Amino acid sequence: MLKKRIPFLNLSEDEENRLKHKIFDIIFETNTRIGKLFNIILLFLILASVGLVMLESIPSINARYHKTLVALEWMLTAIFTLEYLLRIYCTKKHWKYIFSFYGIIDLLAILPFFIGLIYPGSKFLSSIRILRLLRVFRIFGLTQFTRGRNVLVIALLQSREKIIAFLSFVLLIVVVIGSIMYMVERNHPESGFTSIPISIYWAIVTLTTVGYGDVAPVTTLGQFLASVVMIIGYGIIAVPTGIVTMEMNKAAKDDIPKNTEVCPHCADDYHLDGSKYCKTCGYKLNPHDKK
Amino acid sequence: MLKKRIPFLNLSEDEENRLKHKIFDIIFETNTRIGKLFNIILLFLILASVGLVMLESIPSINARYHKTLVALEWMLTAIFTLEYLLRIYCTKKHWKYIFSFYGIIDLLAILPFFIGLIYPGSKFLSSIRILRLLRVFRIFGLTQFTRGRNVLVIALLQSREKIIAFLSFVLLIVVVIGSIMYMVERNHPESGFTSIPISIYWAIVTLTTVGYGDVAPVTTLGQFLASVVMIIGYGIIAVPTGIVTMEMNKAAKDDIPKNTEVCPHCADDYHLDGSKYCKTCGYKLNPHDKK
Amino acid sequence: MLKKRIPFLNLSEDEENRLKHKIFDIIFETNTRIGKLFNIILLFLILASVGLVMLESIPSINARYHKTLVALEWMLTAIFTLEYLLRIYCTKKHWKYIFSFYGIIDLLAILPFFIGLIYPGSKFLSSIRILRLLRVFRIFGLTQFTRGRNVLVIALLQSREKIIAFLSFVLLIVVVIGSIMYMVERNHPESGFTSIPISIYWAIVTLTTVGYGDVAPVTTLGQFLASVVMIIGYGIIAVPTGIVTMEMNKAAKDDIPKNTEVCPHCADDYHLDGSKYCKTCGYKLNPHDKK
Amino acid sequence: MLKKRIPFLNLSEDEENRLKHKIFDIIFETNTRIGKLFNIILLFLILASVGLVMLESIPSINARYHKTLVALEWMLTAIFTLEYLLRIYCTKKHWKYIFSFYGIIDLLAILPFFIGLIYPGSKFLSSIRILRLLRVFRIFGLTQFTRGRNVLVIALLQSREKIIAFLSFVLLIVVVIGSIMYMVERNHPESGFTSIPISIYWAIVTLTTVGYGDVAPVTTLGQFLASVVMIIGYGIIAVPTGIVTMEMNKAAKDDIPKNTEVCPHCADDYHLDGSKYCKTCGYKLNPHDKK
Repeated sequence: MLKKRIPFLNLSEDEENRLKHKIFDIIFETNTRIGKLFNIILLFLILASVGLVMLESIPSINARYHKTLVALEWMLTAIFTLEYLLRIYCTKKHWKYIFSFYGIIDLLAILPFFIGLIYPGSKFLSSIRILRLLRVFRIFGLTQFTRGRNVLVIALLQSREKIIAFLSFVLLIVVVIGSIMYMVERNHPESGFTSIPISIYWAIVTLTTVGYGDVAPVTTLGQFLASVVMIIGYGIIAVPTGIVTMEMNKAAKDDIPKNTEVCPHCADDYHLDGSKYCKTCGYKLNPHDKK
Repeated sequence: MLKKRIPFLNLSEDEENRLKHKIFDIIFETNTRIGKLFNIILLFLILASVGLVMLESIPSINARYHKTLVALEWMLTAIFTLEYLLRIYCTKKHWKYIFSFYGIIDLLAILPFFIGLIYPGSKFLSSIRILRLLRVFRIFGLTQFTRGRNVLVIALLQSREKIIAFLSFVLLIVVVIGSIMYMVERNHPESGFTSIPISIYWAIVTLTTVGYGDVAPVTTLGQFLASVVMIIGYGIIAVPTGIVTMEMNKAAKDDIPKNTEVCPHCADDYHLDGSKYCKTCGYKLNPHDKK
Repeated sequence: MLKKRIPFLNLSEDEENRLKHKIFDIIFETNTRIGKLFNIILLFLILASVGLVMLESIPSINARYHKTLVALEWMLTAIFTLEYLLRIYCTKKHWKYIFSFYGIIDLLAILPFFIGLIYPGSKFLSSIRILRLLRVFRIFGLTQFTRGRNVLVIALLQSREKIIAFLSFVLLIVVVIGSIMYMVERNHPESGFTSIPISIYWAIVTLTTVGYGDVAPVTTLGQFLASVVMIIGYGIIAVPTGIVTMEMNKAAKDDIPKNTEVCPHCADDYHLDGSKYCKTCGYKLNPHDKK
Repeated sequence: MLKKRIPFLNLSEDEENRLKHKIFDIIFETNTRIGKLFNIILLFLILASVGLVMLESIPSINARYHKTLVALEWMLTAIFTLEYLLRIYCTKKHWKYIFSFYGIIDLLAILPFFIGLIYPGSKFLSSIRILRLLRVFRIFGLTQFTRGRNVLVIALLQSREKIIAFLSFVLLIVVVIGSIMYMVERNHPESGFTSIPISIYWAIVTLTTVGYGDVAPVTTLGQFLASVVMIIGYGIIAVPTGIVTMEMNKAAKDDIPKNTEVCPHCADDYHLDGSKYCKTCGYKLNPHDKK
């Protein structure tokens, strides 16, 4: 277990451990009062910062309040960055956290801003911060929410291979359909079939029944083929549904309630209810839990 | 049980109770001949008033018959208002009715008109009256209808948490997708991606496979990303279906026929067939029923 | 059992009965060689006549070959009319046939033409003749086809009440959604929300995820509401699927193969395999069947 | 079993047989190291050639690099042609291979190019080569992929008859709907309903919920009918899903893992795991397999 001292303030090891524990409880723990408070504040800060980015993207508003928006964004990013560093600091296995699902999201949440300093455009990616809500949701032990999600996740994972098979099949046929349509429509530029890639784009837009209409066949043959494509799409749109429904039924059965404790040692979450030790590293779970 | 006398006509308490009973039977009761008649008339009045609102909204027609339409609307609203007051009057627990599902709808059905006197636009909301048909449907004991509905309602309630989980997930990703697409397309105003909110709107329009085409990517990268989004949408559109289908199967099993009596005491409806007393307040059900 | 003689050629009753039998075998019977031949010819005549109507509807072609097309149409309609009369003549219970499902279709197939002589437009309805193929399909004992269809029909009938409940629910909400959107967008004519009926049309176009884009919100609020509507639609589009899937499972079980004999007496079709007598009128089935 | 000698190099029969075996192992075999290598190269060549065709279809790029692209295409097609001939040569039953599923695809992959020499347009069909990936996928024994696919294929085959029944039903109604809409909208050319075929195209675009909006009703009646069509479509879009889901459930049960050996004798693939002899011609399977 690697230890790292904060340079400037020099503490004895166990003073530091106590500090780490305190921080951990505040940031990660769901059962302590202060932990809950922290996460509620976090929730609002995240929403605020996403709102900021959106406002900035609206020309009229940005024109007016540019300075204010930027200032606020600086502030919020600063907070998130500090939080991120503390998260690293207080988890025992730093790297484990950094490369954990939430660790990566936490990083992605602040990165775009800094990249934005060099490539202005990318700052709009900051709204990726919204994904951090996933943790907050989980933390408030919206068990029914998480349980509902579990069923979905399990079902999707279960049907993974079938869906991949299905999608790769779809990809093959859209290429074929796209090429054929391009051949048919290429002499009518008004139809919008200006290249095979565009035609493939059209094929996807059509098969998925989105149908923007920015590209649409104009020749009789083209429209006939399009009709065939749609009828096919009509038939195969049923497939993913069938898959998921099937798996959903299975998943629904073995849907076990999870709790939302986080291992202070390896930052692993999702342990079975009432588990005393981390299922991954065997470290004792929330010793401060007063339940 | 609070009693209230009508001021102007002074009746003995049980005269008034008899009166209330009479009114109740006419307005709420489904089994008496006069009750049925009343509700049939009500049905047509509701349809008429909704038709009125629609006609008013058609410029050409409104220009011609404005006066007539307004007059008729005044009349119908007057009737509905009176009816509403009588409903309050004749139910024993006034507030119970007022805050019951149908009580609120009855209020919403007349409110827009009066608000419309101040803010003209809002009067078009009057067509919300159509929702009053729900009661009429129920009242005509279209049991098969109501039973059909029960299965749906149960299924939807059962899958509530899963659907919420699913929707909140969708909301998170549309924000992310929207921001990314905005970054890609923002330098091509003709694409319509003029701000992140608009891009999120596009993401929803696309994921749900509605695809208006008022906003559509024009850059190759944008169209490629859009294709990915559609393929994803193709995959996840299966999820809600899977959920509902699953629950529907369960719901179908425990689908018990309900009858449509209304408790004269607490205005609670949906009692099991042949129940003699209100399942909520134990009050005797339709004593006037001649079956 | 009413008898009718053909006026001009005077035959003894049983001569006539023999004649009727002969005609019946040709027109209705599926097992005699000549019956099959007749129906194959009929199949092509139907397709031809539908093709005709389509060609007539294409301005360029109609301009060129108007005379020919009209001539051919006269001819084909004459044939169909004659056939219709013969069908009436040779079935014992004339009215039973006339008001049977196929009897009505046979009439609808020729009616538009004659109406078209007065109101030119209506002649295009002649393409309704395509529905006559239903009989032909059945007649060629495409059992797998018919069986496949049976499952569908049964499933749809079974889920009838639920689907009605669902659709009437949809109808109520589109009215409400339409009115609200009209209120929001009415001051932006470019959005296309020019009246409540149009707004309801938009609501249906959106909820069903068709999304033409001919009417689309332009205000931020309007687009936000539209997004909500789509998300809702996303959720409830699952409902009919759930219903049908559920019923389909049941239907699949009790899916009994049917044969395609037609009762010469009451023109009732769909008898259980190997039935010797008409399930409706007890009349002996296809006595000419050489199996 | 027909033998054919290569004219120019004269080998004894069993020298030739040995040669054939060698080639067969390289081209068809999945278990030998060299076979794997060959197929990996093939994979990239296929992707490259499809990429080429796409690039050629993009005007700007084609203008610049036309010569290079054509040259590369010549080269790749030459390779594929040679490969095709070798495949014929080394399979014992030549015709069996030529008319096998993959044999036909292999031919279709090179044909467009040669046709393109006469009719330039058709060369874009070359991207049909992408279908050759199907074999490559299979060859790399992506069992989970293939198994996933099996379930789909089985389900679709199982539901074949029901889907045909459904589609033919859909075809009938789109003709009827199309004609009716044409009658209603034909006097408003701006709506785009310029002929019955176009109207049918519209009906399909609408029923499948694609909804381009290139053709859309403008009259009130037309929009009303369109709404009805959409509601219907809403109801029946559930049907194929129901069908597939149902079959999927069955298929999931009897989903047996397949292996991907190819019979050197009749080029039949898909044998049960661990089968020693070709299930079709009893020929010994992959004698070179070192497992």
